[in-house]
Amino acid sequence: MRALILFVCLSVGGLATPRPKQCTSPPLLTGSFSVATQNEKLMGFAKYSYDALRKRIHLREVGSFNNKTFHIDLLLLYKEGVMYKINYKNRTCSKKPLSVEFHPLEIPQSASLLGQVVLGSSSGPGQGVLVNTWAGELKLKEGPAKYMSTVTEFGCIPVSTLFHRKKSGWVVVSFFNGIIGLVDPQHLIPPSFCEDARLESGEEPITFFNLF
Amino acid sequence: MRALILFVCLSVGGLATPRPKQCTSPPLLTGSFSVATQNEKLMGFAKYSYDALRKRIHLREVGSFNNKTFHIDLLLLYKEGVMYKINYKNRTCSKKPLSVEFHPLEIPQSASLLGQVVLGSSSGPGQGVLVNTWAGELKLKEGPAKYMSTVTEFGCIPVSTLFHRKKSGWVVVSFFNGIIGLVDPQHLIPPSFCEDARLESGEEPITFFNLF
Repeated sequence: MRALILFVCLSVGGLATPRPKQCTSPPLLTGSFSVATQNEKLMGFAKYSYDALRKRIHLREVGSFNNKTFHIDLLLLYKEGVMYKINYKNRTCSKKPLSVEFHPLEIPQSASLLGQVVLGSSSGPGQGVLVNTWAGELKLKEGPAKYMSTVTEFGCIPVSTLFHRKKSGWVVVSFFNGIIGLVDPQHLIPPSFCEDARLESGEEPITFFNLF
Repeated sequence: MRALILFVCLSVGGLATPRPKQCTSPPLLTGSFSVATQNEKLMGFAKYSYDALRKRIHLREVGSFNNKTFHIDLLLLYKEGVMYKINYKNRTCSKKPLSVEFHPLEIPQSASLLGQVVLGSSSGPGQGVLVNTWAGELKLKEGPAKYMSTVTEFGCIPVSTLFHRKKSGWVVVSFFNGIIGLVDPQHLIPPSFCEDARLESGEEPITFFNLF
């Protein structure tokens, strides 16, 4: 009898699989992503370092925008409210106001679960990964924007994010080669030649979404 | 000395990681895929059964095309050169000529490797999957069409395929919930009410790509 009660308790409590919950990604992440817009104006690859503890992001992106290639190195320091645009080749640096709040890599509480699937297969080891896909609406200046985010069930690692922008259509961001931790913490510190950079004011404030 | 030679042999031969090779997916697969076109005309979800041994594919797809929803059940028997369009609700069946050769789920020899990445993360178990992405050109009637296919390194399980069509732009197919084997082999046999169906001729021959 006692064994039966234990079995029932385990089935209802410990062993029962709950519905996936909105989750927050690890606070320190290093990895890469590709970004492409539906109107084909933007196509890029970026390496990122992400530090939610000290609210800093470093992006090094190459790509093409309106058929012109670009190469950009950005350091976003949200606590200081500044963004550095760094040119390591010429050792120049521009410093711009960063007006937005840092928002962590997470699935917002308001998101609703679209479903849980295995990308690839669950038939053998290394053949797939279990992911959850969430959908919702971002509140952007231009109006509400639909998004769809996929993260791994284990670890809440970002896999892909789609969001809709009026000017470019769907923006598809695919994350890969994620590593928990900072591979090179120095990437999140402004280089020495940025020390003399003066804050450029009077420009349109930068948001994460008009970086794309 | 002998141990050293053994070590060198293992390093060069057995333990050295070779470049990923073009691969063929398991001959029996069951799973799902989503399909979406850049021009937003087509959006669908399908369950598939795939049998490369007996050259048969079953697709059950729901979606929308030109803002009209559709529900389609197709059985493609390549050895017999016929395709059944099945309506289980009305128990009706149309039988059409299938003029194309069966082509297995594989990375063609002519494809070139774009790269190997981990979708998600390699920092913990269940957080990611190692995949290879290949690119090349398909020879379609309308002319050459670029494609990009991603499969898992272990098992050659399809993850995603992008190809470009003149009339719809990029077509994105994402595979998920793959299972090696046939979950229900009966899906690959025409139902009894299809027995009386007559071959409809005079139509445009069906190819895998104008199914989309």
